[in-house]
Amino acid sequence: MSKEIGITVSKKDDLSEWYTQVVTKSGLADYASVKGFMVLMPYGYSIWEKIKEFLDKRLKTMGHSNAYFPLLIPESFLRREAEHFSGFTPEVFWVTSAGNDKLAERLAVRPTSETVIYDSYAKWIRSWRDLPLLINVWNSVLRAEIKMTKPFMRTSEFLWQEGHTVHADKEDTDAEVMRILELYRQLIEEQLAIPALAGYKTDREKFVGALYTTTLESMMPDGKALQMGTSHNLGQNFSKAFEIKYLGKDEQTHYAWNASWGVSWRLIGAVVMLHGDDRGLVIPPRIAPVQVVIVPIPYKNAGGADIVSRCRSLAEKLQEAGINVFLDDRAHYTPGWKFNDWEQKGVPVRIEIGPRDISRQQITMVRRDTSERSVAPETDAINETKMLLDAIQSSLFEKASRSLRQAIHDARTYQELKQAIETEGGFVRGCWCGETACEDQIKDETGATIRVVPIQDEQVFSGCVCCGKAAKKAVYFARAY
Amino acid sequence: MSKEIGITVSKKDDLSEWYTQVVTKSGLADYASVKGFMVLMPYGYSIWEKIKEFLDKRLKTMGHSNAYFPLLIPESFLRREAEHFSGFTPEVFWVTSAGNDKLAERLAVRPTSETVIYDSYAKWIRSWRDLPLLINVWNSVLRAEIKMTKPFMRTSEFLWQEGHTVHADKEDTDAEVMRILELYRQLIEEQLAIPALAGYKTDREKFVGALYTTTLESMMPDGKALQMGTSHNLGQNFSKAFEIKYLGKDEQTHYAWNASWGVSWRLIGAVVMLHGDDRGLVIPPRIAPVQVVIVPIPYKNAGGADIVSRCRSLAEKLQEAGINVFLDDRAHYTPGWKFNDWEQKGVPVRIEIGPRDISRQQITMVRRDTSERSVAPETDAINETKMLLDAIQSSLFEKASRSLRQAIHDARTYQELKQAIETEGGFVRGCWCGETACEDQIKDETGATIRVVPIQDEQVFSGCVCCGKAAKKAVYFARAY
Repeated sequence: MSKEIGITVSKKDDLSEWYTQVVTKSGLADYASVKGFMVLMPYGYSIWEKIKEFLDKRLKTMGHSNAYFPLLIPESFLRREAEHFSGFTPEVFWVTSAGNDKLAERLAVRPTSETVIYDSYAKWIRSWRDLPLLINVWNSVLRAEIKMTKPFMRTSEFLWQEGHTVHADKEDTDAEVMRILELYRQLIEEQLAIPALAGYKTDREKFVGALYTTTLESMMPDGKALQMGTSHNLGQNFSKAFEIKYLGKDEQTHYAWNASWGVSWRLIGAVVMLHGDDRGLVIPPRIAPVQVVIVPIPYKNAGGADIVSRCRSLAEKLQEAGINVFLDDRAHYTPGWKFNDWEQKGVPVRIEIGPRDISRQQITMVRRDTSERSVAPETDAINETKMLLDAIQSSLFEKASRSLRQAIHDARTYQELKQAIETEGGFVRGCWCGETACEDQIKDETGATIRVVPIQDEQVFSGCVCCGKAAKKAVYFARAY
Repeated sequence: MSKEIGITVSKKDDLSEWYTQVVTKSGLADYASVKGFMVLMPYGYSIWEKIKEFLDKRLKTMGHSNAYFPLLIPESFLRREAEHFSGFTPEVFWVTSAGNDKLAERLAVRPTSETVIYDSYAKWIRSWRDLPLLINVWNSVLRAEIKMTKPFMRTSEFLWQEGHTVHADKEDTDAEVMRILELYRQLIEEQLAIPALAGYKTDREKFVGALYTTTLESMMPDGKALQMGTSHNLGQNFSKAFEIKYLGKDEQTHYAWNASWGVSWRLIGAVVMLHGDDRGLVIPPRIAPVQVVIVPIPYKNAGGADIVSRCRSLAEKLQEAGINVFLDDRAHYTPGWKFNDWEQKGVPVRIEIGPRDISRQQITMVRRDTSERSVAPETDAINETKMLLDAIQSSLFEKASRSLRQAIHDARTYQELKQAIETEGGFVRGCWCGETACEDQIKDETGATIRVVPIQDEQVFSGCVCCGKAAKKAVYFARAY
């Protein structure tokens, strides 16, 4: 917590090192001593709380309830859905003993909770009256990461929410999948100010065990895509494996349908990467734990008390108006030190009050994103601050949207695809025949995968970008995190 | 979720079976298929959310922040504090492989987080300016339970919060320990309506690795004590093991001091046991997810729509006034079925509106705790409801306080102690010489331990209840969960 020093590399020159410095020096997260794990520090946790609050409230309004299910899952549960098992076992942490006793059956530390949750659902659901069952869980999941740890983006444990719903039929399940995808879009675009492409995953890329997967994908500054959130229709795969059946209005027994969906703390990593700059974090106002910091500027130690008391009454006024404000009246730091500290932490607006501001009954406001300074009459402080926060929120989203548009290129041939992926990165829009063989070849040779199959078909403008045969869809390729 | 049926045993006749039925039939929790684990169901989770909201808000006001630390802890970390290690290893779940790879070092699934947290603190803390460091964590911990599973009370995994704070000296640490104990008292007595004895644990009973432990203990209807929450001064034990040092104002390096403290979902179990009756749960209004349920009573299906719309406007009015209200307008259940259902779920107040209420512009209110019916003018609905909720909250606490007082007996001789423990149970107040040998003997021969050494010394009224020698303190013995 001591010794916060500035970021020593530029974002453009070394994104990876810049990212690590911003995350750790701003107090978002720290590497844990346990390999592959990270600590979510108080400042990072407070952003996660903002994300949670937004989602939790919306989910409850939509009829979902929270619950909690066991961390440890018997191996036999995971094995019941064969694809699911083979997809997850390579990264499962296994518990083999308790105290000094060897367990009769290995227990998986949850890599995701479908199996343990559906085991309970099978007991709870009897009739159509019990449907839909809409449950969400806030927990952490563990998947052993052998690659280099990257805070928020690649860690062996991450915080997330996993929604698990049960429906009577495909139609109702489809509707849930899309309602959630739209909720995630609102979170990502309207709260985090990050534009995303929405669409389906291909069979190759879908969630193991799902009928189909929908996704939101954003573009990072290094030209790699980041999967922001997914919402799956699991069909009746799990309900058949776990015997989730209900008595319908028709008095017949039916297998139920399942959806599952999740977003994780990875979203915080996306915010850092996309909005941050060489001075540190830039946090969109709607998810900023501190939206406004007030820094008193004493003049040669004269009139200091008066200035601080003016700052305090302003802080109270803004707080009452629903703005998250922090008054930095720490005596043992200079204003300049505080400016750097709060800029590194990405607080959207800084308000300075010095002798001149007092005499003119004004406040000086500085935007974190553009460094623009402006003054406003003290009597208009609430309105002006709110307008400024809104302006920052919009302008972050617009800037990111421009970057996204510039990062999308069309490719008509394999050569164009390869070159675009290898030189510029970003999303490459290409036409595709629908065969997994072409996906495999492209992945092997360029590292790119199909990130998104648009929900509304986009016009096919060439043959398959890989094999040249007739194309079925225009899709978006990219390398990804 | 289907088929809710009444409780089939009486609380007085078979507390254990009654408890299990109330917990599962009211939808608080369910047994998981994984032995020793339970599922916190939506209704139970919503009570946990009320407890969390109360504590979280208070803790933040007191200056604490939330954070998140890794689930898996290397064995070598646990070993650094020898007492701590020997205390916890018998119940630790051990991870020994990830995917197909055997791990070089076993990882413990967190039984408590002191070690992994203090490893980070050692990196973060440099100077007196960084102190106090006040962090709280909401997570789950795992401790293998070999005894019979009892939902909320004895499960291999439980949700809790663990606070971990760092201080410059003993004085500041003592103050934190007591501030938290007082916060817990407010939670337990003022929110959960459960009276508790506050005090110190003896060295035999304190947290492994602590300097001293403070506790709040309540009495359950079967005469066994339940530890509700603990707050520990860890001294410098962990800071020495983990090298948590700071540069003081005196320019010297000092080992820091630690406190840790926690309450778990066990509190929900206490609420069930203490306030519940033969019809099911009785939830204190301040932690009730639904404080008021409104049930329309249609008359022979005539005027039904009008009654429901009156109920709906009342529901909106109460909701706006900050009361958690649920309108049960389900068409396929009778009012009688709904009464039973909501009584089983322990909703504090039921409001009925039927044709007679409409014609008299009144509402009928029924208290869950006493079954008392009353009517109030519809125009006074908000005030009357609030007053009734307050009255229920107070009367639950008063009733429980009377029971607690009746469950405390004094013993002057070993024979009196033994008889009191074995016949009536409850707390037995006895005088104690201070020797662990006497504690051990009493535990071996009666099953009772010293639950509380009062914070304010109580008058010594006999020799040691075990050995007869001069007694140092009057303490409270009991068998415990």
